[in-house]
Amino acid sequence: MTQNVSLARGTVMAERSLVARAVLQQCLDARLQVKPSVEPDPAEWVEIQKGMVIYVCFFKGADETVIPKMVNTLLNVKLSETEGGQRVSVLELPGDLLIIPQATLGGKMKSRRMQYHSNIGKEEGMALYLQFVALCEQELATRTKCTEAGAQIKHGTYGNRQVLQLNTNGPYTHLIEF
Amino acid sequence: MTQNVSLARGTVMAERSLVARAVLQQCLDARLQVKPSVEPDPAEWVEIQKGMVIYVCFFKGADETVIPKMVNTLLNVKLSETEGGQRVSVLELPGDLLIIPQATLGGKMKSRRMQYHSNIGKEEGMALYLQFVALCEQELATRTKCTEAGAQIKHGTYGNRQVLQLNTNGPYTHLIEF
Repeated sequence: MTQNVSLARGTVMAERSLVARAVLQQCLDARLQVKPSVEPDPAEWVEIQKGMVIYVCFFKGADETVIPKMVNTLLNVKLSETEGGQRVSVLELPGDLLIIPQATLGGKMKSRRMQYHSNIGKEEGMALYLQFVALCEQELATRTKCTEAGAQIKHGTYGNRQVLQLNTNGPYTHLIEF
Repeated sequence: MTQNVSLARGTVMAERSLVARAVLQQCLDARLQVKPSVEPDPAEWVEIQKGMVIYVCFFKGADETVIPKMVNTLLNVKLSETEGGQRVSVLELPGDLLIIPQATLGGKMKSRRMQYHSNIGKEEGMALYLQFVALCEQELATRTKCTEAGAQIKHGTYGNRQVLQLNTNGPYTHLIEF
């Protein structure tokens, strides 16, 4: 995915295709439907308390080598706010995590519609998503601070509609690309 | 902001700096604090019903020429869902609009922290934000379908913390850059 591009002035710039995109929002609590209601059964929801929502999308060309880098970056970037107003990582807070597959993040506008031609195929995307979730779970599980505080990780089901309720103290929305 | 870059293979690619970034989410209702509580006064909130939340951020180099293009694009892209499941624009729905200034969208990661060196200065950013809001209001006001349906437009205050509550039927998150 890396190719060298010579600029007019003779410099060489490494040009790399995007393989994944994440949007991060901080929350006080968040609730995601993981199974829609099918009469007579009510819908099923997962819920987190204070922590971070990660919306994630994979592009064509992504493979499992990107997962450790993504998890390391997203879980360690200092975007979560302590009671005292300091910015720390979600692992340091420690906070909960809600992971939401969001293929729409790969959209490109063509005329007035969004197209998703750069998105990864559904099966490959699901495999990467599950690896991403598993590695986040592993990271949380190996941090004593997180396990002692009872930090939780919840996630949506790939391919489903991601019905979400979000309550923030300022979403502090960030985009991080890989 | 446009410069021509010659690629190694002899083609010429127009490379343009980003001047603005927007993230769009669809909502069933959303509530944004526009004034924090100062005892004994409670906080002030604005609220919208079904429609679209627009998070917006301007970069260095942005000027007022980008505003009409942004408004035209964001209000006409077919991301809103009708009762029948069709995707139409927020103006066609017609839906409400909540505009949120979100300078954090301009962040770039350096080590484990986000830096905002590409963001536009505060005064210029505020001026552009106000123009953006005004033009969105104007677009809604000139659409009979919107005014007859009572479509509302609400927005956050530039520079404040954007305390947000969001209720979605699937946020259908999209990134659109200018």
